[in-house]
Amino acid sequence: MFMKKLALSAFVVALCTPMAQADTGAAQTLFKAAPQNVAKGSADVFTGDVQVNRLFPANDTAHYSGAYVTFAPGARSAWHEHPAGQHIVVTQGTALTGTRDGKVTRVETGDSVWCPPGVEHWHGATPDAPMTHLVITGVRDGKNAVWKEHVTDAQYRGQP
Amino acid sequence: MFMKKLALSAFVVALCTPMAQADTGAAQTLFKAAPQNVAKGSADVFTGDVQVNRLFPANDTAHYSGAYVTFAPGARSAWHEHPAGQHIVVTQGTALTGTRDGKVTRVETGDSVWCPPGVEHWHGATPDAPMTHLVITGVRDGKNAVWKEHVTDAQYRGQP
Repeated sequence: MFMKKLALSAFVVALCTPMAQADTGAAQTLFKAAPQNVAKGSADVFTGDVQVNRLFPANDTAHYSGAYVTFAPGARSAWHEHPAGQHIVVTQGTALTGTRDGKVTRVETGDSVWCPPGVEHWHGATPDAPMTHLVITGVRDGKNAVWKEHVTDAQYRGQP
Repeated sequence: MFMKKLALSAFVVALCTPMAQADTGAAQTLFKAAPQNVAKGSADVFTGDVQVNRLFPANDTAHYSGAYVTFAPGARSAWHEHPAGQHIVVTQGTALTGTRDGKVTRVETGDSVWCPPGVEHWHGATPDAPMTHLVITGVRDGKNAVWKEHVTDAQYRGQP
């Protein structure tokens, strides 16, 4: 448990460091892709191999951040909800996303999903292929997600 | 001028039709990629060949829409501003974006740009290669962009 907390802390710290190479000298802000923006998803909130690549942070006007998240085959998030909702755009492969009603939905490359506030969901790759999605995650009172328990293999497979 | 207005109207109508295959029966909403979501960019607000592929609309919680926009080599938007700002994520190729200070910035695949409200900018492909970006555009009082004049060849090249 201590190690789990440590791993989660390291993950949160990694995702809370300022984003690399933001050029704020001009009228627009450029966020360069950079290794510092990439972190391994913590085993506390993901099952399997997951990579989080931050694209841009929330700001005072736009209360949402952007990131690519890449899942190895079979990998998925834990159950969670987003206090200000989340959009998912699948950019490579096929995603699965599940809700508490037991429904598991396939989301193909180019499809998008809106998860409203208060809806618990999970998302991840199919069992046989990797998947990348771009997530746009709302922030409310400094929070963008409330994490719950891991998704079981049965839940992942859509079994009751 | 009449034809230009007609073309712009057709473009706006195309982009204002409800998005195809939105499944609102479940806890989450799925927006399927579909030909109905794709429209040619109007010559009133773009130079060159541009394709707009809507991903998801704004909603009551998330006051921004998402779209892929693909530019042929040399193609670019007209000057415009976004009343609630815009994020750009380059997904294929290299983008150029310019501001009224004459600065033209190269934005590579994986880089993001934040354009705050009140900043006039343009964006497009480089002269020699196509480019696709995903735009997340804020909506304020029903408006997501205020369009101005076309970008001249000299402005596009960053010449004074």
